[in-house]
Amino acid sequence: MAERVPPEVLALLKTVSTGTLCSQMRHRGFWNVFLHDVHPLRPDLRMAGQALTLRYIPRREDLDATADYDNLKNKQRVAIESVESGDVLVIDARGDTRAATLGNILTARVLSRGGAGIVTDGAFRDSPAIKAIDLPTFCRAANANLSNTIHFPSEINVPIACGGVAVLPGDVVVGDGEGVVVIPSALAENVAHAAAEQEQREKFIYARIAAGSSIVGVYPPNTDTLREYEASRGSVSETHA
Amino acid sequence: MAERVPPEVLALLKTVSTGTLCSQMRHRGFWNVFLHDVHPLRPDLRMAGQALTLRYIPRREDLDATADYDNLKNKQRVAIESVESGDVLVIDARGDTRAATLGNILTARVLSRGGAGIVTDGAFRDSPAIKAIDLPTFCRAANANLSNTIHFPSEINVPIACGGVAVLPGDVVVGDGEGVVVIPSALAENVAHAAAEQEQREKFIYARIAAGSSIVGVYPPNTDTLREYEASRGSVSETHA
Amino acid sequence: MAERVPPEVLALLKTVSTGTLCSQMRHRGFWNVFLHDVHPLRPDLRMAGQALTLRYIPRREDLDATADYDNLKNKQRVAIESVESGDVLVIDARGDTRAATLGNILTARVLSRGGAGIVTDGAFRDSPAIKAIDLPTFCRAANANLSNTIHFPSEINVPIACGGVAVLPGDVVVGDGEGVVVIPSALAENVAHAAAEQEQREKFIYARIAAGSSIVGVYPPNTDTLREYEASRGSVSETHA
Amino acid sequence: MAERVPPEVLALLKTVSTGTLCSQMRHRGFWNVFLHDVHPLRPDLRMAGQALTLRYIPRREDLDATADYDNLKNKQRVAIESVESGDVLVIDARGDTRAATLGNILTARVLSRGGAGIVTDGAFRDSPAIKAIDLPTFCRAANANLSNTIHFPSEINVPIACGGVAVLPGDVVVGDGEGVVVIPSALAENVAHAAAEQEQREKFIYARIAAGSSIVGVYPPNTDTLREYEASRGSVSETHA
Amino acid sequence: MAERVPPEVLALLKTVSTGTLCSQMRHRGFWNVFLHDVHPLRPDLRMAGQALTLRYIPRREDLDATADYDNLKNKQRVAIESVESGDVLVIDARGDTRAATLGNILTARVLSRGGAGIVTDGAFRDSPAIKAIDLPTFCRAANANLSNTIHFPSEINVPIACGGVAVLPGDVVVGDGEGVVVIPSALAENVAHAAAEQEQREKFIYARIAAGSSIVGVYPPNTDTLREYEASRGSVSETHA
Amino acid sequence: MAERVPPEVLALLKTVSTGTLCSQMRHRGFWNVFLHDVHPLRPDLRMAGQALTLRYIPRREDLDATADYDNLKNKQRVAIESVESGDVLVIDARGDTRAATLGNILTARVLSRGGAGIVTDGAFRDSPAIKAIDLPTFCRAANANLSNTIHFPSEINVPIACGGVAVLPGDVVVGDGEGVVVIPSALAENVAHAAAEQEQREKFIYARIAAGSSIVGVYPPNTDTLREYEASRGSVSETHA
Repeated sequence: MAERVPPEVLALLKTVSTGTLCSQMRHRGFWNVFLHDVHPLRPDLRMAGQALTLRYIPRREDLDATADYDNLKNKQRVAIESVESGDVLVIDARGDTRAATLGNILTARVLSRGGAGIVTDGAFRDSPAIKAIDLPTFCRAANANLSNTIHFPSEINVPIACGGVAVLPGDVVVGDGEGVVVIPSALAENVAHAAAEQEQREKFIYARIAAGSSIVGVYPPNTDTLREYEASRGSVSETHA
Repeated sequence: MAERVPPEVLALLKTVSTGTLCSQMRHRGFWNVFLHDVHPLRPDLRMAGQALTLRYIPRREDLDATADYDNLKNKQRVAIESVESGDVLVIDARGDTRAATLGNILTARVLSRGGAGIVTDGAFRDSPAIKAIDLPTFCRAANANLSNTIHFPSEINVPIACGGVAVLPGDVVVGDGEGVVVIPSALAENVAHAAAEQEQREKFIYARIAAGSSIVGVYPPNTDTLREYEASRGSVSETHA
Repeated sequence: MAERVPPEVLALLKTVSTGTLCSQMRHRGFWNVFLHDVHPLRPDLRMAGQALTLRYIPRREDLDATADYDNLKNKQRVAIESVESGDVLVIDARGDTRAATLGNILTARVLSRGGAGIVTDGAFRDSPAIKAIDLPTFCRAANANLSNTIHFPSEINVPIACGGVAVLPGDVVVGDGEGVVVIPSALAENVAHAAAEQEQREKFIYARIAAGSSIVGVYPPNTDTLREYEASRGSVSETHA
Repeated sequence: MAERVPPEVLALLKTVSTGTLCSQMRHRGFWNVFLHDVHPLRPDLRMAGQALTLRYIPRREDLDATADYDNLKNKQRVAIESVESGDVLVIDARGDTRAATLGNILTARVLSRGGAGIVTDGAFRDSPAIKAIDLPTFCRAANANLSNTIHFPSEINVPIACGGVAVLPGDVVVGDGEGVVVIPSALAENVAHAAAEQEQREKFIYARIAAGSSIVGVYPPNTDTLREYEASRGSVSETHA
Repeated sequence: MAERVPPEVLALLKTVSTGTLCSQMRHRGFWNVFLHDVHPLRPDLRMAGQALTLRYIPRREDLDATADYDNLKNKQRVAIESVESGDVLVIDARGDTRAATLGNILTARVLSRGGAGIVTDGAFRDSPAIKAIDLPTFCRAANANLSNTIHFPSEINVPIACGGVAVLPGDVVVGDGEGVVVIPSALAENVAHAAAEQEQREKFIYARIAAGSSIVGVYPPNTDTLREYEASRGSVSETHA
Repeated sequence: MAERVPPEVLALLKTVSTGTLCSQMRHRGFWNVFLHDVHPLRPDLRMAGQALTLRYIPRREDLDATADYDNLKNKQRVAIESVESGDVLVIDARGDTRAATLGNILTARVLSRGGAGIVTDGAFRDSPAIKAIDLPTFCRAANANLSNTIHFPSEINVPIACGGVAVLPGDVVVGDGEGVVVIPSALAENVAHAAAEQEQREKFIYARIAAGSSIVGVYPPNTDTLREYEASRGSVSETHA
């Protein structure tokens, strides 16, 4: 299990977009860390936490069905009660949306345990109710079928696939209105600071472009533009001071 | 054709979620009654009615094209004018969204005839205009192409497939912000009452969980929790009295 | 390259729905001009302009990667700086949404150059930021991955495929809350007027239907209905006068 | 139900390819008569017969499960015992291959009843055994699951969809190593003769091309080539005499 | 890990079809044990063995790439050298066929270690060479890309998903020309005998049908047919004696 | 346009598998050069040549339909008559298999012009006849529909996408029983020699593994194994001498 990432790093990551984080990860050689076709139910909320993974396999009739309602044996329920402050529950549902992975009551429990969010490449049920909960949640679809219609919760905190991306227990998981990006925890602090810096720079660039500038020399910035950006930072810092 | 379900049963079904109804149907042995990948245009509206089915097959050039504009022969138009109060028009479009199944004018006519809603695993056209109509409508996609681009309306009130689910004429069809569930009419009253009861119980459970309780012993509820729930109902009833 | 379509024609096209335009195109023998599975980020905005096409092919490691940041060589960047007033940038992304085609900074530049909109059958990144820009934008998905993760911008202003539809440079491209329709520029004026006329007629029909009329004799309209419509136009004109 | 097509017409149709038949159907305005993604188990056999249609809808637990083994009620079994000489059993499986539509015993029965073939856009089970039966069979996949895993046989001899194509009872259904084409029975005789004529002409053209000729003037043939073809027919006829 | 199934049970299972085994599993309440869209490279070979499972997750650049060529650390290589006599290597590739799971050299090693077969819902590379090896192999596709293009071998002998079916370490895995079925080891002996008995009965039924009998009373067999079958078994036994 | 690759390089490439070539391309940093889901009609033939590309866009009714039969204007026909000795015709069909890209007569013409093969991510028609032609051909599916049902041939010798891979005019295209790999022409000679060397080494390794050796130390080979391989080459050379 990865070590806990400092809260200030997670806080910083919540200020930057998944787009910026994908750029930073690419600079570090990572090509596939944004979950494909996984969408926010609450695009107004930002999420940053560490992955508590839960893996579903296809239902099979001899896998302990009586465990469905046993909170001490059913891995879905055990996972929920394992959530610690700052955890993002990430569920590998094999991209299968013919049934849910969980619903609004378990979502509420994740929130009350201090969870930072829930992510799956499967479906949620009670999705209208989940939208009303102030927890960042991300899924591929809504489906009212019970999870055990097609799924069996098999393991907790093993490496999983979610939205075509590898997710390891403890990975930093960041979400915004666009979707979800995964960052190995060892890189999180470095990525967070570089991303925050990049966003500052791109806000400057964006302002220039929005004001009518050509992208030539500005995006990407040439030396002159960078110098002007640095100068503006000084003045901004002064302003903020 | 199934018998008419009493209005109070349909009214009760409009108060419960499709999630709860899927749970109740599973208790009765039904595994596949929630339409896959069929979404509400108006998630704010609830729907409950009985299925008037319409089946589209692929367009073929020798199938009477002149009937396109003949309201007395074209099965799509005949179906619209067959809608009675409380009917949900359910259209089997084979999940093909490369063209629409109908548009806003026919939608308005369904509403004025007292229809309870429209459901298809195909597309709607004029979808922005349909969203402005106070009728629950559910589809897989929006597509501005005329329905006869790919479809031919073949039969009315035969068993159909919609969203991967069997729908028989007269089936009870319930929709909410999550999607659509199908209930054989003979089960509707029993399911409605059990679902309403389940929702009461789950509201109690949800309140506990939201207040910080563990799911252990609460969701699913053990004997103590159930006793407390029963007690609360008494007091709630008194309060409401 | 097609000739410029008069601004008043584009203005008229912005007042009619893509549904109506598909009807008009079908009357002229066109069956496949509505882009499949391409959605508005800003369903509140209408778009009408002429296509500036950009074709992406799959990334290959020997295609000039250093051009990624060279605004004078990279075809994506050159296309952006080629946008003229009234152009709609249409990007053929082969329907592949595993990475973006562009993000918010380039979108802002299209707006400031007078572009009429951006359309792709691929993804946008920075989609929450793009939604905040007052430019009509249409895509298949949101994805934070950089475009060169899977794409290489190969050519500008060649015939392309987008959403399963042929788009030629200079084609008129119209969008609304439902999606995007493509009209050969030579047909645009004729289609625009016929569509505006059709919408007037259908507003009349819609009002009748909404008021409780049967569709029989009204939709499609028979001679009596058409006469009443014509009469109403006179009075409407008078009213408006 | 369509009338019986003369045996000599069916015999003639078995001598021409589905490619040629698609060409002939296009000349008559039909764009969509070749079944998509439906493959021969026995590419060495040619098939021509008339459609006996069978429609499957999704399984639902209240649809008479006891009928599974009742040959007098189960529509699948009734269809099999309804096969007459020259019939092609065409099964609408909604393209769903997660279970079979039928297996080798029912296939053998179709053969012994004089059936001309079996076609489905679903799966067969016992496919290795079916391959050993001298009956043309066409499906989308092989799957050992029992048909009632996902299907319920709902109706016999109604219009269906198969492989994205409309199939009406009595339609002429022709198959070869490439796949299956559907021809309205009223057109069958005319199409058969025109197709046979086209194949003669294309054999001549093919021989020219194979001998090194350019396609220019030959494919499609210009007046000279057509005259040479006509001349060659004379000599061929003499040779055959 | 499941116990070893007796060789005579595996031998018996190799004599029956996956179709028959699916029937037997359904009698025991199992609905989803046939792998979807997984095909034999060698349809002439039958397979029966016990699952050694291998799970791939999506490639990520920080997962130990140097282990690619380290047979003592790379889980793919460790799995190969863990194969014992009678094992079927079953690889969970998430159904992703954009790269291989393994090629002909590792296949040869599985054979020489006494492996009973290889199954994956991903792809093989060197598939023409694998076809030449006398080992039953099953995959979804052929793809020449190296496995680490998209995969990272994560775990050995954990529960996996393959072709939409749960596979547990030690499960009995049987394959034929149709595909692959999974049987919990505890059921294997019972299923094997019942399946062999069913095949005997169905051979009798098939002979009747092939000889021209109706299916009514024969398939499924009524009491008379069963009596005749029992009588025939006696005579067959005598003949064989 | 790329320069012509020496015939002896193409000849050498025909002796190595696409699997080996993908390995060599990966060593050079290329991750995506094997066409996805494109299959040989003639797995017994090997292909090596240089790409003559042809791009199809979706059919549109105003694109010159009269050109369908004009060999001097229709780009499909012009492409066929442009084939030179050693060319592989590679057709970008956007992966759409609802109609063919070409049929047996044009295939025969490619052969007689000295073409080295035909590749498409669309379909062929007359596929049984094409299988009888001694030309390597690769496609995604068979479909008897005429190409202009859905396609319009737009351009010759431009960069295209085929099977998810970039193909540039003049690229070396190699095919075997597994599929097709694309190699920039500038790399062809180097890749060919390295691949031939790799195959020699892997034949040695394969023989070891097939003889019962562990993969440890052999695959990948350690220093000892490599020394033995080098020694064996000497003796082999001597033997061959």
